[in-house]
Amino acid sequence: MEAVFIGSGSVATHLALALQKKGVTIAQVYSRTQKNAAILAEKLNTTYTTDISEIYDKADIYFYALKDGAFRHTLKSFDLPDAIHVHTAGSIPMSEFDGIATKYGVFYPLQTFSKEKEVDFSKIPICIEAINSEVQKKLLEIAELLDSKTYLVTSEQRKKIHLAAVFACNFSNYMYDISSQILEDIGVNFEIMHPLIMETAEKIQSVQPYKAQTGPAVRFDDKIISSHLTMLKERRDLKKIYNLLSKDIYKRHKKK
Amino acid sequence: MEAVFIGSGSVATHLALALQKKGVTIAQVYSRTQKNAAILAEKLNTTYTTDISEIYDKADIYFYALKDGAFRHTLKSFDLPDAIHVHTAGSIPMSEFDGIATKYGVFYPLQTFSKEKEVDFSKIPICIEAINSEVQKKLLEIAELLDSKTYLVTSEQRKKIHLAAVFACNFSNYMYDISSQILEDIGVNFEIMHPLIMETAEKIQSVQPYKAQTGPAVRFDDKIISSHLTMLKERRDLKKIYNLLSKDIYKRHKKK
Repeated sequence: MEAVFIGSGSVATHLALALQKKGVTIAQVYSRTQKNAAILAEKLNTTYTTDISEIYDKADIYFYALKDGAFRHTLKSFDLPDAIHVHTAGSIPMSEFDGIATKYGVFYPLQTFSKEKEVDFSKIPICIEAINSEVQKKLLEIAELLDSKTYLVTSEQRKKIHLAAVFACNFSNYMYDISSQILEDIGVNFEIMHPLIMETAEKIQSVQPYKAQTGPAVRFDDKIISSHLTMLKERRDLKKIYNLLSKDIYKRHKKK
Repeated sequence: MEAVFIGSGSVATHLALALQKKGVTIAQVYSRTQKNAAILAEKLNTTYTTDISEIYDKADIYFYALKDGAFRHTLKSFDLPDAIHVHTAGSIPMSEFDGIATKYGVFYPLQTFSKEKEVDFSKIPICIEAINSEVQKKLLEIAELLDSKTYLVTSEQRKKIHLAAVFACNFSNYMYDISSQILEDIGVNFEIMHPLIMETAEKIQSVQPYKAQTGPAVRFDDKIISSHLTMLKERRDLKKIYNLLSKDIYKRHKKK
């Protein structure tokens, strides 16, 4: 199987490397940015282009791993009806391919990727959507090649999964960031929080988050809450977050 | 060394079991609740009491692992000037022991404990505070017995560490809970989020949370943000949180 990668960011990098390891030929990398294209092409020991008209036209599958929105513009510029076209984004509906490609789908790995950090695709859930059963079969085969767990989801569901991921990943990380700011103020290294953060994440692998909830808000411990709010009096932004989240936790656990 | 545990909750249970494994004799367990006292005493193969006047008076150290505030009341009721008295709470100042005990301190394990889940004390940071160097030496020895990493912190610092932990643990868990509610609405099992949550927690073990921040808010991706807010239009509570956190992430990353 021959694949072309449109895009050279974190998702493209990790997915292309993982597929190559499993025997897929990465025929070419395209990126608007020469530097990024060259870096990824070197990692894959393949060729690259920054010119849409020079995109290799005999691949079996084209992966669009671009910033949301940019891919439609790229796709319009060439026409390869025999190949499968898939994007890897959480929030772009599959219908973006309507009238442009004939065989298409979505291959969305639900994970946060950093260029520096290795990822193990066998632990990444892949959300798959396809225009027909032929494409679906192919995408499931590719996911199987990577030992990934697959979920067949519609564009509507995928959008909500992406929204759920913003809470579970981006907003959790922001809670870590706030925690590190509070520690910085008192000269304590953030490493003191590492074990607690790991344990909190590990716990919900076996217990529903609702049941795993601890802390002053779920205990309705008003004394601790008001002492915390006093400590935050000079950080109005954090006080607002503390107040809002505590009230919502309280409400959620009170009514049941 | 002989220890008595005042309290029979999660912290008492895990700490007493861990100390016993390392050769500390747990002479007795006290709890106001007979059932809880009996359960922990059985686990430790020791005796228990629910009567303050019957607390064993020859132990070397008394651990107060009670709900915040309850311990002062207990402590007042007996007087053991030769023993060391320590509480295990994040938010109670050491000065609560003033005028009641003579040798005292704080032994605060920074972790979230569930009764069912085993914990490894060698991975738990212990925040230590002591009234004098004799007590401090003893508490450091006990932490060393458990292979725990120790931090010498004041009551003021400990209160802020506890506040930082509310963000890192309790509020992160609430983000997981919201994520699970969004998935429940579309009939997708929350297990799809497990790898993402683990990766997010693992990442900050080596990268500062500020640098690890990803998502639409840090990319200033207004299109995605407004589509997410639209999806939340029937959950005003979640919409408010999404809006507030996104704006704050935006601000934090814009000004640098």
